[in-house]
Parts: sequence; C-alpha cells; structure tokens
Amino acid sequence: MSTVRKAYVRPLDLKNGRVDMTHGSGGRAMAQLIDELFATSFDNEWLRQGNDGALLPTAPGRLVMATDAHVVSPLFFPGGDIGCLAVHGTINDVAMLGATPLYLAASFILEEGFPLADLARIVASMASAARDAGVPVVTGDTKVVERGHGDGVFITTTGVGSVADGVRVSGDRARPGDAILVSGTLGDHGVAIMSLRENLGFATVVESDTAALHGLVAALLAVEPDLHVLRDPTRGGLATTLNEIARQSGVGMLIEEARLPLREAVSAACELLGLDPLYVANEGKLICICAAASADAVLAAMRAHPLGRDAARIGTVIDDAQHFVQMETAFGGRRIVDWLNGEQLPRIC
Amino acid sequence: MSTVRKAYVRPLDLKNGRVDMTHGSGGRAMAQLIDELFATSFDNEWLRQGNDGALLPTAPGRLVMATDAHVVSPLFFPGGDIGCLAVHGTINDVAMLGATPLYLAASFILEEGFPLADLARIVASMASAARDAGVPVVTGDTKVVERGHGDGVFITTTGVGSVADGVRVSGDRARPGDAILVSGTLGDHGVAIMSLRENLGFATVVESDTAALHGLVAALLAVEPDLHVLRDPTRGGLATTLNEIARQSGVGMLIEEARLPLREAVSAACELLGLDPLYVANEGKLICICAAASADAVLAAMRAHPLGRDAARIGTVIDDAQHFVQMETAFGGRRIVDWLNGEQLPRIC
Repeated sequence: MSTVRKAYVRPLDLKNGRVDMTHGSGGRAMAQLIDELFATSFDNEWLRQGNDGALLPTAPGRLVMATDAHVVSPLFFPGGDIGCLAVHGTINDVAMLGATPLYLAASFILEEGFPLADLARIVASMASAARDAGVPVVTGDTKVVERGHGDGVFITTTGVGSVADGVRVSGDRARPGDAILVSGTLGDHGVAIMSLRENLGFATVVESDTAALHGLVAALLAVEPDLHVLRDPTRGGLATTLNEIARQSGVGMLIEEARLPLREAVSAACELLGLDPLYVANEGKLICICAAASADAVLAAMRAHPLGRDAARIGTVIDDAQHFVQMETAFGGRRIVDWLNGEQLPRIC
Repeated sequence: MSTVRKAYVRPLDLKNGRVDMTHGSGGRAMAQLIDELFATSFDNEWLRQGNDGALLPTAPGRLVMATDAHVVSPLFFPGGDIGCLAVHGTINDVAMLGATPLYLAASFILEEGFPLADLARIVASMASAARDAGVPVVTGDTKVVERGHGDGVFITTTGVGSVADGVRVSGDRARPGDAILVSGTLGDHGVAIMSLRENLGFATVVESDTAALHGLVAALLAVEPDLHVLRDPTRGGLATTLNEIARQSGVGMLIEEARLPLREAVSAACELLGLDPLYVANEGKLICICAAASADAVLAAMRAHPLGRDAARIGTVIDDAQHFVQMETAFGGRRIVDWLNGEQLPRIC
C-alpha cells in the first residue's frame, strides 16, 4: 500500500460511491482508495513506508505465522462485522501457539458495486480492532472482481508473532490425565450469525463473542508457562476442535455435559434452529489443556480476565487408542462426540 | 492446516469430484481436503505440525512482510496459472525490499462446484513453484462460498522474509542522477492473459513471464549492496510503477522509448488489442534504480542471470518538483507518461 499523499481531482465518495473495477487496476483510482481509506484508517509507520511490503524490526524469539480468509455472511452481525472478525481471528491463531502477535497483513477482494460506505465501516472496525489489540496492519493488497463473481468483500489476514523461550504450546501435547478447560460460553458467534440469517426475532439478541485472545493467553502463560495445548474452537465448534487435538496428540478425551458453559439464549436458539451447540463456532473462546496439577491456577487466571469470566474445567484427557472424544451426558450416560460431518453452518467466519 | 493422517471412508475424488460447502465447514470433509491435497502437495516440517499456524525458527535480521490476493482470470494461461503466480507474486514483493523470502502462507477461497481436478492442478503448480524457489508454504486456510459468490478459486499468499544489514532498498530512495534499469521485456504477462481472453489466434503464443525474482535480486545485491529502489511493475505496468516511485521519492524520471525491451509478438498484440505496453502487467520483471556509477555493473549482473538476459538501462532519475515521468519517443519528441487511468486490464493477477 502506497501511503504518499497526493491530490486527486475529487475526493473518494465514501458516502454514496461504489467499488468499481478501476479500484483494482493498479492505477490512479486504486492509489486513491489506498490513500484516502486504507492508509488513513490503518495509519502506522510501516504502512507509511509506501512499498509493496513492510520492512519491520527484527522479531525476537521463534516466529509464528498464521493466515485466515474471512467470508462471513452477512458482513455485519450483532457484536461485530467481517472487519473486526478478520483481525481477531488471525490474532487468535497466532496466540494459540503461545505467541505474542506482532503484525498483521490484510488483503481485500472487493466485488464491483460494493458500497464504499460499507467498506469504510468495515475498515474502521478493523482499524479499531487492530488498535485495541496493539497489533498494527503493516501491509495490504486490494483486488476487485466483477459483479456476481464475489460477495461484497472477502478479507484475508495474516499474522506474524514471536514465541518466548520455554513456551511449547502445540496441538500434539495433550497427555492422559491433563485437564481440559474452556474460557467461556459456547456457540455465541455461530448463533449470532444464524439467528440473523434465519431472521429469528428473539427477545434476547445473542451477540458474537468475537474478541482477540492474546491478552488472555499471556495471563495464562504468566501462571503456567508450560501450557500443553491452546486452540480456539471456531468452525466445527468445541466438538470438532477436541477431535482434532485428540487425533493430533494420539489421546482420547472425556468431557462432562453439565460443566459446559452455555448461555440460555444460545441454548434456546440452538433448539429452535436444530443446532447442537457443541458444533457451533466461537470467535472469542479458547480451549486450554494443561497438567492437572496446574488446572486450578490456570482456571483462576482465566476467570480473573474479562474474556474468561465464565471459564470452566470441562473434562480430562484420557488414554484411548481410537482417539475418541466422549461426553458424560447430563443424564449420566456416555456418548461419542464425533467430528462435524457435513456443513452445519456455511460461511460462519 | 492439520496434517495428521487419518483414514476416511473414501479417498477424495481428485479426478471427477467437485468442491462442496462441506469442504469449508471445519469438519471431516475439510480435514480430508487438507490431508489428501494440501498437506500432501506442500509437505514440509512446519505444515506437518498440524496447528492453525506454523512455529518457525527465529528469523535473522529485519523482517519483511507482504501480501497479495490473486484473482486472475482465466485461472490457466500460457506460461502459468493462478497457483504459480500466487507464489511468484508474493515472493517478488518480499524480494523487492532486498529481502530473502523465507516462508509463505496460503489462503484459498473456493467456489462451490469448482472441479477438484483443477484445484489439484493449481495446488501442484503452487507446490512446484514454492519448491523451485526454496520458499515453503508453512500454513494455510480454506474457505468455500456458494456457487455464484466466488469465481473458481481466489488465492491470497503472504510472505515473510529477512533483510541483511546494510541493505536499504525502498521506493523513496530514487535520487536525481540515478540510473533506471529494467530486467527484461515488458508486457508479456498482460498480453498472455488478454490474448487468451480475447481469443486471439496469434502465430506466436505469448507466454506469461511469471517467475520468482529473489535469485536475481540476490545477484544484484552481490555486486551493489546499496541498490536504491527495486519494484516489480505488475498491475499498471512500467508507467504506473515509475510514477509511484517518482511520487514516493519526490523526483522526476526521463526514460527513452528506443531502449525499452519489447518482444515483437507483444508489440503486435498490443497494437491489435489497443493496449499501450507501458501499462501492461509484468510478473517476472523488476525495475532497479541505483547510483549511475554502479549502473554498468548492475546491468551486467542482470544480463548474466537467466531472468535478466534482456535487461536494459532505460533512463535516468531527474529533478522535478511535479514528479513527472517523461519519455523521449522514438521520433525524438518528449511526452508525459501518466499514471494508468481507468481499468485497462481487469483481473490480470
């Protein structure tokens, strides 16, 4: 993104204007979009370099890199929009390796005809999320596709972070006996999107939990630097994420239904929509697996953090050659909690 | 991307299968796509970690980060396809800051119904380009959008690299008196795409010049560590890129039409299509601006490299408060070479 200001014949019409093919041409119209919207909103010393990439200070420690495309529909939803979601989602993927997120790159695929006012609102939301998280958007790219070949806006963000010595968080480190914790209520994001899509008029609007979790991760690492696994249960929800970890670590898991934190409104909406909250996406929650001996301290640290107030210890890692995730139901039975099969919630993030 | 192998009921049908919404669900179908296509093709130790991000060795020196969305249409063209283009494009953005590219992240937005055989061909091309360049794809993401809300496949790649001490390449370092070099013939990529789109049946097929330029950059830095500016003239072509640099450095430029390297077939196609080759995209060429004293040595190093055989010294940086790029035409006149206005070549990369 070039950020050197220049005078254009007319300022960008951020109120009534629309994206057209020239905004992706590489020419003057694109330069104007970058100058008057992206560079202004994301402003920082790296973006101001005005090159096709950013030159950044040497990063301390081991590097972490994560990328996520965001295609959520609708673009605006209770509790957030595609802009802040794109910032939070990638920051969280970086943080789930125990890293401190340092920088973000953002790439936009815009559809011809998309209102510039909506784009401006989304970019403002991204910029605000990045500022709040302390993770600047240092470089970017914009492409435009013809009407009917995109869907408003898709945003891919990529994050880079650094990991302190001694931290070895990874999905393959769950061990039998480890405690399984979750940082808060399940399914809020997915239900917020689905309620909107299905036009459900609930008395209580469920808001997306979209949030950047790196501060919470830092708080947990402060009490236990040797956390075994961190992962955010996004697409596929808690059930699929636990199955992923079980497979990766070569273990089984046993969780207790009665301990799963769930908002009443989410529970009611899931019933109405025919969804199982175990499979519904979260965008501001994490699963933490750690040695049983440190579970109480880690849980206390979670609950002391604003994003972990509803945290709970939900189960235990067990020995299981078949890597099943099982659940003790509220009625005292036991059932297998399988991977998500099929597509329950398309374009949830 | 999770890369832990598991048995699926049936292997992915890479011959006759198609992308469906479940491939973006986060569930079992997505895990299978990742396992059987992405992880297999891009295989490397970082991807094999199987987390939502990659944990990488400490990067030496200052960091560089660049990102590019690729929406080229058609997806396959003479000389390449969206896959290798996505690898080359981002490697080049990293290299244009004088950096050694180290890692790539890849994010895919797939359209429901897209043939898996085409996807496999594209992924194979990406993997081969990454291998040839020595820059592994260490992490990725896949999303699926409904039919009619995407266009086959969009690929965003993000690159990270590191810059050696003493290298200070940037678009704001062009100084009056500096030499302007270009590494080879102009407009090959844009003409390759446009000929295909317009279904021109040329006797000579023009191939895209898509290539990774970091090896060439290393060869140039070896003879002159203090290169002032490097930039690849992609969208908007040579003309727009020179205008960007002129604006960023606060200088003017004077180039000579007679010195611009141009294939005859490209020249002929441009005439037929009504295109000015100065504005046509390149994907394997770079502009280099350096002190006049080192221009001969840098030009010789370019010509000694397989990707710089047709390199030429095309002009000089001059003092100009209006930051105009001017060209001495083949007929001895002088004209202003403006920014690209409007959209000459939609979805060229």
